[in-house]
Amino acid sequence: MAITVVGSVAFDSIETPAGRQDRCLGGAATYFSLAASFFTDVRVIAVVGEDFGPAEEAVFNARRIDTRGIERAAGKSFFWEGSYLDNLNEAKTHITDLNVFAAFEPKIPDAYRDSEFLFLANIDPVLQRRVREAMPDVKLVAGDTMNYWIKDHLAALKQVLKGLDVLLINDTEARMLAGNNNLVQAARGVLAMGPKTLVVKHGEYGATAFFSDRSFSGSGEALVSHPFRAPALPLEEVVDPTGAGDSFAGGFFGYLASQSELTPAKFRRAMFYGSVMGSFAVERFGTARLQELTRQEIDERFILFRELTHLD
Amino acid sequence: MAITVVGSVAFDSIETPAGRQDRCLGGAATYFSLAASFFTDVRVIAVVGEDFGPAEEAVFNARRIDTRGIERAAGKSFFWEGSYLDNLNEAKTHITDLNVFAAFEPKIPDAYRDSEFLFLANIDPVLQRRVREAMPDVKLVAGDTMNYWIKDHLAALKQVLKGLDVLLINDTEARMLAGNNNLVQAARGVLAMGPKTLVVKHGEYGATAFFSDRSFSGSGEALVSHPFRAPALPLEEVVDPTGAGDSFAGGFFGYLASQSELTPAKFRRAMFYGSVMGSFAVERFGTARLQELTRQEIDERFILFRELTHLD
Repeated sequence: MAITVVGSVAFDSIETPAGRQDRCLGGAATYFSLAASFFTDVRVIAVVGEDFGPAEEAVFNARRIDTRGIERAAGKSFFWEGSYLDNLNEAKTHITDLNVFAAFEPKIPDAYRDSEFLFLANIDPVLQRRVREAMPDVKLVAGDTMNYWIKDHLAALKQVLKGLDVLLINDTEARMLAGNNNLVQAARGVLAMGPKTLVVKHGEYGATAFFSDRSFSGSGEALVSHPFRAPALPLEEVVDPTGAGDSFAGGFFGYLASQSELTPAKFRRAMFYGSVMGSFAVERFGTARLQELTRQEIDERFILFRELTHLD
Repeated sequence: MAITVVGSVAFDSIETPAGRQDRCLGGAATYFSLAASFFTDVRVIAVVGEDFGPAEEAVFNARRIDTRGIERAAGKSFFWEGSYLDNLNEAKTHITDLNVFAAFEPKIPDAYRDSEFLFLANIDPVLQRRVREAMPDVKLVAGDTMNYWIKDHLAALKQVLKGLDVLLINDTEARMLAGNNNLVQAARGVLAMGPKTLVVKHGEYGATAFFSDRSFSGSGEALVSHPFRAPALPLEEVVDPTGAGDSFAGGFFGYLASQSELTPAKFRRAMFYGSVMGSFAVERFGTARLQELTRQEIDERFILFRELTHLD
């Protein structure tokens, strides 16, 4: 089943201990759609400027990602510059130029309207909500957010959370959103805000899914009363952490969308595929690794993740 | 098979967000031996002062731990006071009174000499080495250390590392010991110093074992080329993190000592049992939870840890 994703398509200038790359193709919707495209059809809603040319378009086309929802506007694309010199787990932002993104009004192509899955990548919750409301018939909605929206746009964000099947955020965001430093208590607090399921990403330590009694309401299976934890791969070198969380979301949601129903067993596999895609994303700058990736490499790493954590 | 453990038996005054407890029975050898005692016979080598009375002795006796190697000296037992008010993952030390521990000369009772397993808990590496050399016939030796010994007693520590089958330390210690911030590279550096296998404890994120080509040299099984990661249990409340790492070591090494040989499959289960014992230790102040624990609870939590991470 097809996924529609709304989010940023951007250019990033990134400095890490491994080096520096200027104006890589980036943005949450880009990483998400590349990662998800290995599992299912993906359709992007975003806005770009005049600096988004055939070379960038080709990155999406090579993965057969539908770009009819990427609007071209006068001006420059969203630009971000940051570094990870002190800490690979946390970017230091130097420049954020919203550019054409400042006036973004998401428009949903008619060809996208039969999408059964919707991913609301990290953008203004007002826009997330608008897209959600414009696609009332989707089967499953997942979303992401960040500290900026939690801190200064909480009321709008809470409206979005009410309609989410799955919220994917990191430890710091979960603790901040719930106002509680204990992860289990914070998870309960976040679930009470609306998301049926919460996936908390721990960077190099993997990710944990917390379930509510509404998590698998459609599957007819028993309630899962305990969390589920997917590992991350201990990596020799993290070249560029940018987009790891969005790639996790793409692998996770892409796998779910490729399945006929959401069951606890499918959900656990989706968590592993999320971790697998995150582990590839950080191996090269920007989206370079996702662009050259093969499905066989994904399947091999999935097996490795199983061996990494399974007793037998 | 029996384990001999050398390390501290102490009194701790501990403050955490959950409250405060004065002069709990503590010390690395105490946590280790209580945790390991659920799996195999344990024999302790330590020194205590005149403040170690029948009540403390009874804690060991209740678990049938051999205390003939706990020497009574004139003066007071090792005392530590610390708090975890800002960060449950890192203790802030207020007082360290070595007391009788300052002149500790480990003596090995004859009754301990047929122990096939030896655990060198976190003490002066000069003492660790002395005990190791006094027990040349043990089958498997594991050990722990801390930042203090890495920083200021590295030469002595390196002598100990050469003779270890398994070293158990935390992330910070592994990175400090190898002088490398990347965990995979740090692990390779530490393994090059001598330990056949390295277990890195990640606190609330579990633990990762890194293997060398000498890890399972006696088992006749194929080399394990990738790490293994055991989860930790996302806990509603961490009452007191003190002793979690020592309890992990006790569960891990106790399980191994209860098995007839060290194979990759046994090793993976040992990692899970380590995590299980660590997860119990933090549920109450000091050793209170380990004292009241039952084997059935351990087995139930082992199953939970499997469900927490396994796909099927």
